Amino acid sequence: MTTVTVPAGSLFGPDNLPYGVFSVDGSPPRVATRLGDTVIDLAVLLGDEVFARPTLNAFMAEGYDRWVAVRAELAERVTGEIPDEAVHPAGDVTLHLPIEVADYVDFYASEHHAANLGRLFRPDNPDPLMPNWKHLPVGYHGRASSIVVSGTDIIRPCGQRKGKDDPAPVFGPSVRLDIEAELGFVVGTGTAMGTSVPVEEADRHIFGVVLFNDWSARDIQAWEYVPLGPNLGKSFASTISPWVVPLLALQPARVPTPTQEPRPLPYLAMEQPWGLDVDLSVRWNGVEVSRPPYREMYWSPAQMLAHLTVNGAPSRTGDVFASGTISGPAKDTRGAFIELTWGGAEPVDVGGEQRTFLEDGDEVVITGSAPGPGGARLGFGEAAGRIRPAVLPATRTG
Amino acid sequence: MTTVTVPAGSLFGPDNLPYGVFSVDGSPPRVATRLGDTVIDLAVLLGDEVFARPTLNAFMAEGYDRWVAVRAELAERVTGEIPDEAVHPAGDVTLHLPIEVADYVDFYASEHHAANLGRLFRPDNPDPLMPNWKHLPVGYHGRASSIVVSGTDIIRPCGQRKGKDDPAPVFGPSVRLDIEAELGFVVGTGTAMGTSVPVEEADRHIFGVVLFNDWSARDIQAWEYVPLGPNLGKSFASTISPWVVPLLALQPARVPTPTQEPRPLPYLAMEQPWGLDVDLSVRWNGVEVSRPPYREMYWSPAQMLAHLTVNGAPSRTGDVFASGTISGPAKDTRGAFIELTWGGAEPVDVGGEQRTFLEDGDEVVITGSAPGPGGARLGFGEAAGRIRPAVLPATRTG
Repeated sequence: MTTVTVPAGSLFGPDNLPYGVFSVDGSPPRVATRLGDTVIDLAVLLGDEVFARPTLNAFMAEGYDRWVAVRAELAERVTGEIPDEAVHPAGDVTLHLPIEVADYVDFYASEHHAANLGRLFRPDNPDPLMPNWKHLPVGYHGRASSIVVSGTDIIRPCGQRKGKDDPAPVFGPSVRLDIEAELGFVVGTGTAMGTSVPVEEADRHIFGVVLFNDWSARDIQAWEYVPLGPNLGKSFASTISPWVVPLLALQPARVPTPTQEPRPLPYLAMEQPWGLDVDLSVRWNGVEVSRPPYREMYWSPAQMLAHLTVNGAPSRTGDVFASGTISGPAKDTRGAFIELTWGGAEPVDVGGEQRTFLEDGDEVVITGSAPGPGGARLGFGEAAGRIRPAVLPATRTG
Repeated sequence: MTTVTVPAGSLFGPDNLPYGVFSVDGSPPRVATRLGDTVIDLAVLLGDEVFARPTLNAFMAEGYDRWVAVRAELAERVTGEIPDEAVHPAGDVTLHLPIEVADYVDFYASEHHAANLGRLFRPDNPDPLMPNWKHLPVGYHGRASSIVVSGTDIIRPCGQRKGKDDPAPVFGPSVRLDIEAELGFVVGTGTAMGTSVPVEEADRHIFGVVLFNDWSARDIQAWEYVPLGPNLGKSFASTISPWVVPLLALQPARVPTPTQEPRPLPYLAMEQPWGLDVDLSVRWNGVEVSRPPYREMYWSPAQMLAHLTVNGAPSRTGDVFASGTISGPAKDTRGAFIELTWGGAEPVDVGGEQRTFLEDGDEVVITGSAPGPGGARLGFGEAAGRIRPAVLPATRTG
């Protein structure tokens, strides 16, 4: 038996207890939690087969009351003696995509981000927001299969792009490859077709939270997106953190959203919509270039889920909805490089180099932390990815 | 042992042999084919456990060479003596969703449809097509969990809508509920992240074809869709036919697409892009109101799949991509009621009633057939759905 010591200042103290999926030396992936610098095998610790699976889905599907019960049991067990075979140094394990993703929807919930993009794309329009923006959380479906775990290399996508003055589109590797620093919300239990999740019940359905990087090819996106929205500019990859922090752990991080005016329609209205006080950090080749503050987000997670299902769309265990780029009011809180560099016009200093969009070999690491009880801070690990050169599609065989 | 007699004129003759999933008297769902009015249990007929599953996915994942081999074996076996326990009258079985849907993308591949919607939504624009439309197959991701099998009731969705002169949006049941008559293409084998499907290899990846009705709430869609595309206006339900017709069966139905001018970029260019000569029929409460011709579609299935993956987006067994509304040049070939009734301004006669959009209790049945060898025609069954009244979301508990 072993006891785990948590280093001072660890983002994985006993108030976090996130869930992830690990393997060691090629063993089959299984569910774990993390305490300090130690990864703890939950199937061994708790003797429950639901954790001897390659994703969290089976556990999540057991529902809210089980999430509460397991978390309480975990909190007690991890501070005591733990079987040696359940304990692995964090540096020894491989972390995997923790969930089997069902449907994936990306929202656009930051007013600062939406307004910045409006100013960039529609400079002559006096109101940078579209008329629907303050009435509903605007979102679109993305490609579930393209969600990968932190550390997966990102291959620069190819596609069509056309500058305003080009006579015709050209094909090739994206030259405006960007990030979007977001939070992703993992749906633990879904709803049947024809029903919806009221805003007050969202936290019985949302299992947990991940860091999310929605890699974006701005040139592909700009040419393709009328009138049906982004598609190939986004569908090549999104990176999530390996640790899913339970929404239950983020109770101390709840903060009011900014004032919502006009008042949302009743299905979106809450006495006090809650956001989360998560501070993100974006490092570009090791240099911190932005600190996006999730607390600034206009639409709350509960409102996003209520909107997503209000038309009766079925939801499922493993659905992920992401917040959209997190941007605050200050320049150094913008969560996408297109905003940070104002469309490429204002390069940022990255370790002495003036940079606008991503170059091959660049690495972006997003981290984040939230307040826990008693001054502790809780972390998610990181959402990291390095850009690999484009692979041109096979030439014609004919 | 039994032999199956195919009635004259059956759309399920021995040249079709579609795949579906059935159950009888509450038994677990299994894979079948259909011959005439008989459903044949393939696990029994072929003695292969891959067909004793509730979806086609495991079989599809075995790949193109197996699809060819099984089809050849089936063609031989169904004309001979068949074990009694493999044979069920079509009227005795329940048909289920035949595939587990992975990602779902809906295209917009009919020039007539895109131009009609352009004229309706942007009447002052001299060119009804967006500038990208003839350069790439425009598409967007939809909600995979909302795909249901023919016969599933469709609950009228609720959502926000705002007329041009309304001061603010209102919430309630959609009042412009519509259909989109399409074909859906089922991906049998996928591709790894970072790779793509060349146009010449599409038919090694596309397993088969279904009828597809992308139910659409035009009022919800019109308010929500800027700038990220349709979302809740589409995500409540799409209906597919229970039978997946193998692409291998549709070889005689291949026809050239309309002339593509300007010439597509090399990754989309084919010596002769092939479409499919499938004639659809849309019946509204039993009255045929449209006959959409798939042969008129501008972008081919191979081009849609090549585009979908050219950025390196991973594809998977069970992915579905649909064509978008099929509309021909004549009014009575328009595959959506918004076009057929010109935005509601020109009602159609439905059994003596003047109708524009769908009312509660209405039923829409889409059928289709394609030429087989020697003058035979092949069918898909039907994509049918009846509109049930809206269910308002639960009122606030607070």
